[in-house]
Amino acid sequence: FESRLLKANQEPAVTLDGVPVTLMANIEKPDEVKLVRDYNAAGVGLYRTEYLFLSSSRVPSEQEQFLAYKAVAEGLAPNPVVIRTLDLGGDKPMAGNPELFPKEDNPFMGFRAIRFCLEHQDIFRDQLRAILMASAYGKVKIMYPMISGHEELARANAVLADCMSDLKSRGVPFDENIPVGAMIEVPSAAETADLLAPDCAFFSIGTNDLIQYILAIDRVNDRIAHLYEPTHCAVLRTLRRIVAEGHRGKLEVSVCGEMAGDPVYAPLLLGMGIDCLSMAPPWIPSVKYIVRAMTMADARALAEEALQMNSPREIYAKCEAFYRARVSVD
Amino acid sequence: FESRLLKANQEPAVTLDGVPVTLMANIEKPDEVKLVRDYNAAGVGLYRTEYLFLSSSRVPSEQEQFLAYKAVAEGLAPNPVVIRTLDLGGDKPMAGNPELFPKEDNPFMGFRAIRFCLEHQDIFRDQLRAILMASAYGKVKIMYPMISGHEELARANAVLADCMSDLKSRGVPFDENIPVGAMIEVPSAAETADLLAPDCAFFSIGTNDLIQYILAIDRVNDRIAHLYEPTHCAVLRTLRRIVAEGHRGKLEVSVCGEMAGDPVYAPLLLGMGIDCLSMAPPWIPSVKYIVRAMTMADARALAEEALQMNSPREIYAKCEAFYRARVSVD
Ligand SMILES: [Mg+2]
Ligand SMILES: [Mg+2]
Repeated sequence: FESRLLKANQEPAVTLDGVPVTLMANIEKPDEVKLVRDYNAAGVGLYRTEYLFLSSSRVPSEQEQFLAYKAVAEGLAPNPVVIRTLDLGGDKPMAGNPELFPKEDNPFMGFRAIRFCLEHQDIFRDQLRAILMASAYGKVKIMYPMISGHEELARANAVLADCMSDLKSRGVPFDENIPVGAMIEVPSAAETADLLAPDCAFFSIGTNDLIQYILAIDRVNDRIAHLYEPTHCAVLRTLRRIVAEGHRGKLEVSVCGEMAGDPVYAPLLLGMGIDCLSMAPPWIPSVKYIVRAMTMADARALAEEALQMNSPREIYAKCEAFYRARVSVD
Repeated sequence: FESRLLKANQEPAVTLDGVPVTLMANIEKPDEVKLVRDYNAAGVGLYRTEYLFLSSSRVPSEQEQFLAYKAVAEGLAPNPVVIRTLDLGGDKPMAGNPELFPKEDNPFMGFRAIRFCLEHQDIFRDQLRAILMASAYGKVKIMYPMISGHEELARANAVLADCMSDLKSRGVPFDENIPVGAMIEVPSAAETADLLAPDCAFFSIGTNDLIQYILAIDRVNDRIAHLYEPTHCAVLRTLRRIVAEGHRGKLEVSVCGEMAGDPVYAPLLLGMGIDCLSMAPPWIPSVKYIVRAMTMADARALAEEALQMNSPREIYAKCEAFYRARVSVD
């Protein structure tokens, strides 16, 4: 089976009825560029930028960041690289900087990600300039984490516009049409996707956090992890709404949470209209395998049926049966 | 102004265009019955039952609970008393019982409320029997906190049915038609209110938690409390959906969070179709004052306009202007 997977990985990600699917990689370090290439990813759908900040107690300089982002952009050009701005805080505080990240009672609903960046604009600006500078060396996109509504998005975009005119006045080259998108992972963003769409080039659904907030379940908490249900009706309906509003605004809608890399969920997501799945590179072959073993028509029928069902367990069973019927593992 | 408020409090809660509004009280101890009467509440919309559990390290017996619930039911009969089943955990663990409530990283998204009760059914059954027994002495309703979906509701109702047949076989009297409702405070419950409605006699919206999860903001966290916005579009749209689904199922829909007791928000909530507001007793006079100073037609127009607006701050300003125009404080 392993060898069939690796063989599939040399082939294009196209369904049996000829629909091409975009499979991208999630990475966090420049040295993962080789992995992205080895697994034939169509690019990077999520470049987590926390690593540089978490590997030292010092906040990395604009120049250090630029070099890291440039290495990835250049290494993968002309394929796209979606760089997510800092998602520190939550379960990823900067250990060496307690003054930047005070201890919190509920860090997952705390001072993190874009909330942190909009208050520490010196750090945010350094990162945005570094990303912009890297955009001269490949196909770079910017993505904000934990956006909760259109006003927060507008504030982030205003800082970005400022950084752009700064670079421009200094004659530093960058992609002036760099696509900027929002992660949809806070329920309020999902509910107001129609208001976000006009200011976004794309949506990327962070299913891990989104499901967590929708169900009010800390999925890292063993005591209640069994209540974390990706196939809860509320989750599927929310995903459907995000896709509908994204497509109405002519945006590409991707998923970059763990659901995207699970071959049991991938047909459901693609059937719901998700345009792109981004995952840890080693998961790409098995997702590509099911993509190549299914028709998009069947995936759409699966999604439609799932949206009519009410039991999370039965929906999961349906997805699993869909997978099993197409991938015999023996 | 104070005296005008107290005078208003003797009058019925009716709008200028003759629509009666139900104003209820939130309490947590039997000795608050007098307060409920003094403030002319139409009953208790939220009786928090954690007090008995938090005031001692011992889990209170069925009999102790029965006496407490009976005192309130009897003291306020024939007015209704909505008894909420245990909402322990979160920011209210039982300090003396670390084995029941292990330390959690994100207690607000943790092992709490109905989740705790469904796993500690001995404790849950004692409470349900105590509430049922009290229902023979007044108009008692049962309400489950933190319901996340219809399957969890069905599990809770199954335990309740069991307790009922237990009492019945022992010949203990109770209200066999006791109304049972769900708090709507987890986003997944709001999203699937249509699936909950058939198994509920009423919805009670817990705006504090609901807003917290929708925005992924721990409102107790000072660092980000300014981002906790009750007038965020996502919140208003979610409230509208809950009311619509509740009314489609012919259920009464109340609000028992802090929004309900704020006279600036009350017209917005009533205008959206909320049937009942439940609040700390001392807040009743000022809410009753604005109810008696407005028409329901105006409140509906306010709500409709607010739902068309996008800026949380502007929506708040609109609500404040509505209030100011009707209540001159000088
Ligand atoms: Mg996230
Ligand atoms: Mg609550």
